[in-house]
Amino acid sequence: MSTFLAELLGTATLILLGDGVVAGVALNKSKAKDGGWIVVTMAWAVAVATAAWIFGPISGGHFNPALTIALAAIGNFAWGKVPAYIAAQFIGAIVGAALVWLSYLAHWKETEDKATKLGVFCTAPAIRNVGANLITEIVGTFMLVFGILGLGETKMADGFGTFAVGLLILIIGLSLGGPTGYAINPARDLGPRIAHAILPIAGKGGSDWGYAWIPVVGPIIGGLLGGLLYTLIF
Amino acid sequence: MSTFLAELLGTATLILLGDGVVAGVALNKSKAKDGGWIVVTMAWAVAVATAAWIFGPISGGHFNPALTIALAAIGNFAWGKVPAYIAAQFIGAIVGAALVWLSYLAHWKETEDKATKLGVFCTAPAIRNVGANLITEIVGTFMLVFGILGLGETKMADGFGTFAVGLLILIIGLSLGGPTGYAINPARDLGPRIAHAILPIAGKGGSDWGYAWIPVVGPIIGGLLGGLLYTLIF
Amino acid sequence: MSTFLAELLGTATLILLGDGVVAGVALNKSKAKDGGWIVVTMAWAVAVATAAWIFGPISGGHFNPALTIALAAIGNFAWGKVPAYIAAQFIGAIVGAALVWLSYLAHWKETEDKATKLGVFCTAPAIRNVGANLITEIVGTFMLVFGILGLGETKMADGFGTFAVGLLILIIGLSLGGPTGYAINPARDLGPRIAHAILPIAGKGGSDWGYAWIPVVGPIIGGLLGGLLYTLIF
Amino acid sequence: MSTFLAELLGTATLILLGDGVVAGVALNKSKAKDGGWIVVTMAWAVAVATAAWIFGPISGGHFNPALTIALAAIGNFAWGKVPAYIAAQFIGAIVGAALVWLSYLAHWKETEDKATKLGVFCTAPAIRNVGANLITEIVGTFMLVFGILGLGETKMADGFGTFAVGLLILIIGLSLGGPTGYAINPARDLGPRIAHAILPIAGKGGSDWGYAWIPVVGPIIGGLLGGLLYTLIF
Repeated sequence: MSTFLAELLGTATLILLGDGVVAGVALNKSKAKDGGWIVVTMAWAVAVATAAWIFGPISGGHFNPALTIALAAIGNFAWGKVPAYIAAQFIGAIVGAALVWLSYLAHWKETEDKATKLGVFCTAPAIRNVGANLITEIVGTFMLVFGILGLGETKMADGFGTFAVGLLILIIGLSLGGPTGYAINPARDLGPRIAHAILPIAGKGGSDWGYAWIPVVGPIIGGLLGGLLYTLIF
Repeated sequence: MSTFLAELLGTATLILLGDGVVAGVALNKSKAKDGGWIVVTMAWAVAVATAAWIFGPISGGHFNPALTIALAAIGNFAWGKVPAYIAAQFIGAIVGAALVWLSYLAHWKETEDKATKLGVFCTAPAIRNVGANLITEIVGTFMLVFGILGLGETKMADGFGTFAVGLLILIIGLSLGGPTGYAINPARDLGPRIAHAILPIAGKGGSDWGYAWIPVVGPIIGGLLGGLLYTLIF
Repeated sequence: MSTFLAELLGTATLILLGDGVVAGVALNKSKAKDGGWIVVTMAWAVAVATAAWIFGPISGGHFNPALTIALAAIGNFAWGKVPAYIAAQFIGAIVGAALVWLSYLAHWKETEDKATKLGVFCTAPAIRNVGANLITEIVGTFMLVFGILGLGETKMADGFGTFAVGLLILIIGLSLGGPTGYAINPARDLGPRIAHAILPIAGKGGSDWGYAWIPVVGPIIGGLLGGLLYTLIF
Repeated sequence: MSTFLAELLGTATLILLGDGVVAGVALNKSKAKDGGWIVVTMAWAVAVATAAWIFGPISGGHFNPALTIALAAIGNFAWGKVPAYIAAQFIGAIVGAALVWLSYLAHWKETEDKATKLGVFCTAPAIRNVGANLITEIVGTFMLVFGILGLGETKMADGFGTFAVGLLILIIGLSLGGPTGYAINPARDLGPRIAHAILPIAGKGGSDWGYAWIPVVGPIIGGLLGGLLYTLIF
């Protein structure tokens, strides 16, 4: 398979399994309803690890434009491949979000609140505050990109490094996810937001485009800072 | 031990430990009562990994007719062995369900609700909708079979690949289990349903045969699709 | 260090960390109060794994008379060493329980209910029923001993087999712990029960000696059956 | 990078991710609010493992003066390096705490209770009792230092030993964290306490200096005892 297809399918897997857990805990009548923060954060962690185990050997397993751009900026990835990677990530994210819609097909009309339904697809801040929200996304993605690069410096048994990356996703969610829901990935947020706008979701509201730029710009800045620190000290 | 015995005992282990957790969180007076979705999903994940670590080296550790059929369909398993594997899986599932009944022997009469007792043995949809329920089981089992095959492409330290499969079960439960309770395995659902019909469970109700075909047909379709995608791209 | 000391200290570690979590979730004013079944079961799992990683290379890491007896019965352990191992396990369990009492020193008088305080040290059934309680302890310890022996047949990366044993403890707790609190170990139950009778615990009640034989006899029977099945099929 | 920088950045990572989870579960309007004890304890465990995987190969990954002192006392670490390590750990802890303040910038004014805000930074006892609180911190840090040294005796696959240390942090939190919130590290407690005193946190109260010596003295004593037992028996 091509690296394009691997990034597309890996991101689709990530979003199906990641947005899927939000549907599970948020939509009415779901058996996972109110499963709690541990359910949400563990699911995103395992979603990343699973996608990276399967597709990582082929494409490197970015699934995240902020990581792709940061790797290019520090010379670990060719700039020429960046556009195709980002395109694949966005297409994959939209495909994954559509599969979440399908998997929970009977549940959308059972949930009144429009913000809850949008929240399955993309993030919203706990307190709407441009500066604070940007900072949180910057710190979270800084931790993500610096962490991935730093973990790569440590010798790990086969397959175990990817598990450690999954734990990195877990800890970012547990510890830094409270204020903005840890997008830390432009494709993870904007892709499903587009899907929300397109899909015929029963009783949906608006897609909150006013907030959409923050989980794009914040992660790109944070990723660049993470890459920068890595090159400075390692 | 024969592959037949390994599949039988492995599936019995899976159902004892998997249906056991549902008994634990659902039956009145159990110390695990209302343990939450994380308890249920982690238990099924570890149940699969434990059974696969012990019996997988002998039989391949299918424990699931949808996986057995998908592997045969893509040429990774001999069709001639399929009937014996499926028979072993169903016998094992019934044995495991009987052990759950025994392990919680004093608790059945303490729980009034008949649907709760049936729910220990087999799945029921959160919203009864043939089309939507089929789709959810198809997507979940697609992810299971494609995931197992995909994880098999990645080099893992000894014993770690089976752990990754356990995490795959965890994420399918966390993210896709909300609508139907993720049967994703005809033997896991129909075997214990038969056990429920046969066993002298205190105050039991009907076995909901009207729904029984969905967690059989859905997983078989989903497994075939997962196998198909795998052969197309890997 | 001698195998005697390793079994003693390993069992003390197990009980300090295992009974410690029950103190944490059960005693009033503890920060872990009402942490839930996932907290209890994960703690016992990690307690076993931690003790086994540290002391297992020296003594084999039994920490459980039911396992020691089962291993001797199937010829995997010398009968002559059994008395010393069991003595070490009981002394260790009492030492561990005393450390739990010390670690939660200010909390005992804050909790009125005497059964709650006893429950920190040893198990009590959810529904008192000799036959049913024995069956649950037999099935749980059968799973424990058969599981440990079965996992030993699988090739695992260094240190990972002990992690898998920890997951086995987790799944037994999650799935079979509901009816009796999964003693599955005579030293784990009777040792701390003796400690409860001896220690000057503020406002303690009786030590429920009427139930004390069940978590001794049940696990020994279950362990022997687990060892027997292992020798029959592997 | 120097060992000084590695200890500084590793401790900063630990505190950002560790104190971050307390902010997440404790501050009003956070999405992780009331996530429960499993969220807090898993986060501290993964925070330690993540910092140790990244920075451990360079500095040994102490991040804790009690560990540094204990290692020096038993001859496993040069006394001459102790002051620089401890300085780095305290500076790192303050940096990490400042990043937590920034990451949750909009949330501080939404939470009235001053003790809750202080509790994000440093520990407070569930029951204020000098003797009992000291004992708990001694037992916890004894377990930490003895455990790290003991785990080091066991052969582990690459990267897996650090995972086991993470699980050791998890179990100490789950089982011994109830009475004092398991500081078990002078830098983890006093560093962020200093940060709390310095930072312009909206609506903050006092920094509870009366308690501040206990999570310093207790861990140092406990660490020395853990090191002592290790040298006596291994």
